[in-house]
Amino acid sequence: MNEFDAIRRMARLLPEPPDEVVVPIGDDCAAFRIGGETWLAAADMLVAGRHFKGWASPEDVGYKAVAVNVSDIAAMGGRPRFVLVSGGSPEPETALRVFEGVADACREFGVYPLGGDTTRAADLTVDVSILGVAEFPPVLRSGARPGDLLAVSGELGASAAGFLALEDGVAGYTRLVGKHLRPEPRIGVGIAAAKLGVHAMIDLSDGLASDARHICEKSGVGCRVNLDLLPVSEDTKSLAESLDRDASVLAASGGEDYELLIAASEDAIDELSRSAEVPITVVGRVVEGEVVVFERGGEVVKDLSGWDHFS
Amino acid sequence: MNEFDAIRRMARLLPEPPDEVVVPIGDDCAAFRIGGETWLAAADMLVAGRHFKGWASPEDVGYKAVAVNVSDIAAMGGRPRFVLVSGGSPEPETALRVFEGVADACREFGVYPLGGDTTRAADLTVDVSILGVAEFPPVLRSGARPGDLLAVSGELGASAAGFLALEDGVAGYTRLVGKHLRPEPRIGVGIAAAKLGVHAMIDLSDGLASDARHICEKSGVGCRVNLDLLPVSEDTKSLAESLDRDASVLAASGGEDYELLIAASEDAIDELSRSAEVPITVVGRVVEGEVVVFERGGEVVKDLSGWDHFS
Repeated sequence: MNEFDAIRRMARLLPEPPDEVVVPIGDDCAAFRIGGETWLAAADMLVAGRHFKGWASPEDVGYKAVAVNVSDIAAMGGRPRFVLVSGGSPEPETALRVFEGVADACREFGVYPLGGDTTRAADLTVDVSILGVAEFPPVLRSGARPGDLLAVSGELGASAAGFLALEDGVAGYTRLVGKHLRPEPRIGVGIAAAKLGVHAMIDLSDGLASDARHICEKSGVGCRVNLDLLPVSEDTKSLAESLDRDASVLAASGGEDYELLIAASEDAIDELSRSAEVPITVVGRVVEGEVVVFERGGEVVKDLSGWDHFS
Repeated sequence: MNEFDAIRRMARLLPEPPDEVVVPIGDDCAAFRIGGETWLAAADMLVAGRHFKGWASPEDVGYKAVAVNVSDIAAMGGRPRFVLVSGGSPEPETALRVFEGVADACREFGVYPLGGDTTRAADLTVDVSILGVAEFPPVLRSGARPGDLLAVSGELGASAAGFLALEDGVAGYTRLVGKHLRPEPRIGVGIAAAKLGVHAMIDLSDGLASDARHICEKSGVGCRVNLDLLPVSEDTKSLAESLDRDASVLAASGGEDYELLIAASEDAIDELSRSAEVPITVVGRVVEGEVVVFERGGEVVKDLSGWDHFS
């Protein structure tokens, strides 16, 4: 049983959703109606040894725990509003340092911490639950249509490259390390995309290879992604080369970029790219059928996979 | 630095609460206004080795993680509505078993799971965030007034006795063990108390000795609690005696009963006791000053303390 099997089996145990729940568990966020408003909720947990190692300061861990949750709200086109933050740590001093990072991220993303819990635990663990509000109808993973373009915000592979720099102790890649430790969720892009009524959206946490599959599975469609089109920065390419890694494969499968993957009409992508705070890059196309194909130089690239939290 | 010091220092890092937040972090729940409604939010994390040991099944851990959060909503007089549940576990099978307990508790307490996360972790860890709605003004810890009676719902010490039975392998105390593994939060009592406008309320998670102090500190008052009045069941007394423990001290300091401690006028306590689904017992009185006194047989009992999650 892997993480996705476990989640599928958990889904069967769920009680019937009450009337207010308009999107149940299974997308980037759940959505529910309160007093005439649509609210979004999600949670993500980070655990030492699994999601970060000794190279991440407690402050970075706290910051990132909030940022990755903000990204889930962004992926539905919502505005993040409140978090609840629980931390297990070997001693209270570490818990306090984690919370300093949490407070920084809250200020950065306009989020208020409503509560939380702190306890002793052998491994540093931070769990954040987030609430956001959706001014426009939430964008689901399930709305992609054949003929849609697939586009990504910002750049890909920078976080994975920063991770490799940290793991291998490669000096001089401060920007990439920053991308890994303190990702920038795309709140503005997400809201603009929801306002434009894009068809499907997901945040790139597991990596393009996995997350494109998530959109296709939920939408009952396939896609063709061209690795030559992926927006990869020069420093990511340089680091990949120095470690004898393929930069495009890193960008497609590395994960944790927390950029947005969007399926929409050409017009909507054009419009979005004019208003977005970061570049919007078309990387492929949604097609009939349920096959997800990655190609490069006209050749199909096999065995691209993403992140399984229990692998 | 202990847990309470860390929390106090975290509180200083909080950004200014937005206008919708009517009760910030620091009570059983935060309270915030959405579209004309008052909502409540809280979070509690359980960690293996700290909050439970091998005697708790993963299902019990999942159930209890929801129940203790429901108790925080009850302590403000709210109705629990939604949870987000994150779990770290050594393998997906355990995560699934935890979620079976979560789903049981959700059905029991009328709560719907909006989302969550699952990941690998060395120690089983479950964090639950809860949302509830308050039909009546939320009851805070800070409203106790000199002259108020102090009353508790249900019985005290049963959970601590169940814990001792599990720890010492004492057979035959199934009811007490059940009280420890699957506590019954007092949703009905909490709502009835809020409707009556009681002055202060808290759930007994850390133990009466600690939680009475929390009410007194927040309210700027003192209290006198008479240990002879604590509602302690015969099986709790019998187990305590068999282990050479003082049953009243266990009831006052054991914690995890998830009963409610209420400060209110005599009339309100009378009225509450007529409608409550469990006995309501007066155990003391709120007084001027800030001294918390526990007495028994006319003598002051010293050195009663509760639970520190980092001790």
